Amino acid sequence: MSSHPDANLHPVATGSARAIVDDHQSEQPLKLYSGWFCPFVQRPWSILQEKSIPYQYVEVNPYHKPQSLLSLNPRGLVPTLQYDNKPLYESNVICEFLEEAYPDHGPKLLPDDVYLRAKCRIWMDWCGSRFIPAWHRYLQYQPMTDKSGLEKAKSDFLAVLKELAAELHSTGPWFLGEQISLVDFVIAPWVLRLWVFGHFKGGFELPGESEGEVWGRLERWIKALEGRESMAGVMSERERYYSIYQRYADDTAQSELAKAVRSGKGVP
Amino acid sequence: MSSHPDANLHPVATGSARAIVDDHQSEQPLKLYSGWFCPFVQRPWSILQEKSIPYQYVEVNPYHKPQSLLSLNPRGLVPTLQYDNKPLYESNVICEFLEEAYPDHGPKLLPDDVYLRAKCRIWMDWCGSRFIPAWHRYLQYQPMTDKSGLEKAKSDFLAVLKELAAELHSTGPWFLGEQISLVDFVIAPWVLRLWVFGHFKGGFELPGESEGEVWGRLERWIKALEGRESMAGVMSERERYYSIYQRYADDTAQSELAKAVRSGKGVP
Repeated sequence: MSSHPDANLHPVATGSARAIVDDHQSEQPLKLYSGWFCPFVQRPWSILQEKSIPYQYVEVNPYHKPQSLLSLNPRGLVPTLQYDNKPLYESNVICEFLEEAYPDHGPKLLPDDVYLRAKCRIWMDWCGSRFIPAWHRYLQYQPMTDKSGLEKAKSDFLAVLKELAAELHSTGPWFLGEQISLVDFVIAPWVLRLWVFGHFKGGFELPGESEGEVWGRLERWIKALEGRESMAGVMSERERYYSIYQRYADDTAQSELAKAVRSGKGVP
Repeated sequence: MSSHPDANLHPVATGSARAIVDDHQSEQPLKLYSGWFCPFVQRPWSILQEKSIPYQYVEVNPYHKPQSLLSLNPRGLVPTLQYDNKPLYESNVICEFLEEAYPDHGPKLLPDDVYLRAKCRIWMDWCGSRFIPAWHRYLQYQPMTDKSGLEKAKSDFLAVLKELAAELHSTGPWFLGEQISLVDFVIAPWVLRLWVFGHFKGGFELPGESEGEVWGRLERWIKALEGRESMAGVMSERERYYSIYQRYADDTAQSELAKAVRSGKGVP
């Protein structure tokens, strides 16, 4: 999976992410091939930060992919993780790999209970099969003669969010309760980009607690994600994302993901 | 995921699967809600058999879903696993759950090595994102005025199969080598249905060893799957699948999967 940008791409991370990138330039056996703008990269990137695992950050210019990446992963997608000189890809697989390969680097991001572990995997999968497609259908929707289609795309997106909200542990703050988990990390990048709807779709506010307890719970979960340094810290300055998401909002983006959504497909 | 059939559905398993169903009618806390014809069900069903885990088999009539299933899983999809009176779904998640929840029931289906575990998950994911869509695009392809499109769908499918073949352990017999793993179980149901192309698409033979070592290796892997009792045993009589796959071959099937493939989407 990749959210390959289209044009006018700023070449490097900015804002709080800049300092993290600068801190991870020295040679390390574990390398994260990254695009600073890519939400799929952010999943494992935040987990590396959360667990303080030593790693080297390698920014990949999508128009000039380094040979070191292409030798590892011929498709050249980010994120690719280099571990023991071998490649790993698929962002959710990398996340679970980091959990298994670095057991001494806390916090634990999967519970011990076998049922809850499976529940986490169901919702990690849900993020790719339901949440991201609904997010992109809303962002890429092009109103034709009237706006009812846009309202539909928005309400479909809210329905998907509500499905998640109803599954959140009642007191939280995290999906599972007091324990932060892979589910939080896997969904966070798109939650931390909810501002795109306000910016590109003419205003967007989530229903508040007054419209149901479930929305209040969702709000508290979103605040928890926004307040977690490992999640919020890897974001760049908001304006740097504008040119990328403008192409999605105009539905002219040419990434694999954009094209898949345009033709009605899911996450490729 | 579900391969909900359309019409003329035989109500119960036949052939070798019939005896297995009969053996698993008594009340058990672990219940597999199943459709005998469904390849997604076959993934965890074969693993239950392989590991000799005690379970109760519950056949679900897709037109009259039992309340016990709908109470567990409102979408009523199969497979649903009832464990400790709670629902689990998503066939790959159920497979990994069985591996974690029944550690004393051999064989182990994931290696200990963390890199190989991640590699297994990459190829389990690949089955849903690449292999099954290519399988269905070929089966559901409708030739219009000429047959070149059908040849294209076939060669695309063979290209995906070759991608897998190149990843198989060189001596095998299994994906990982001597150890059978979740990858074998997750892909097997569609491999054991390759006959559909011969039946519905006017003949189909895999390239043999003479066309490259990789095809010889694939052939040996397929033979290994066909010879594994836990995989082949849960298949019903071939003719009982005809009415189901006829609808796919005519591209008139109405399952979620059929519609997704028709509109160019992946596995829903």
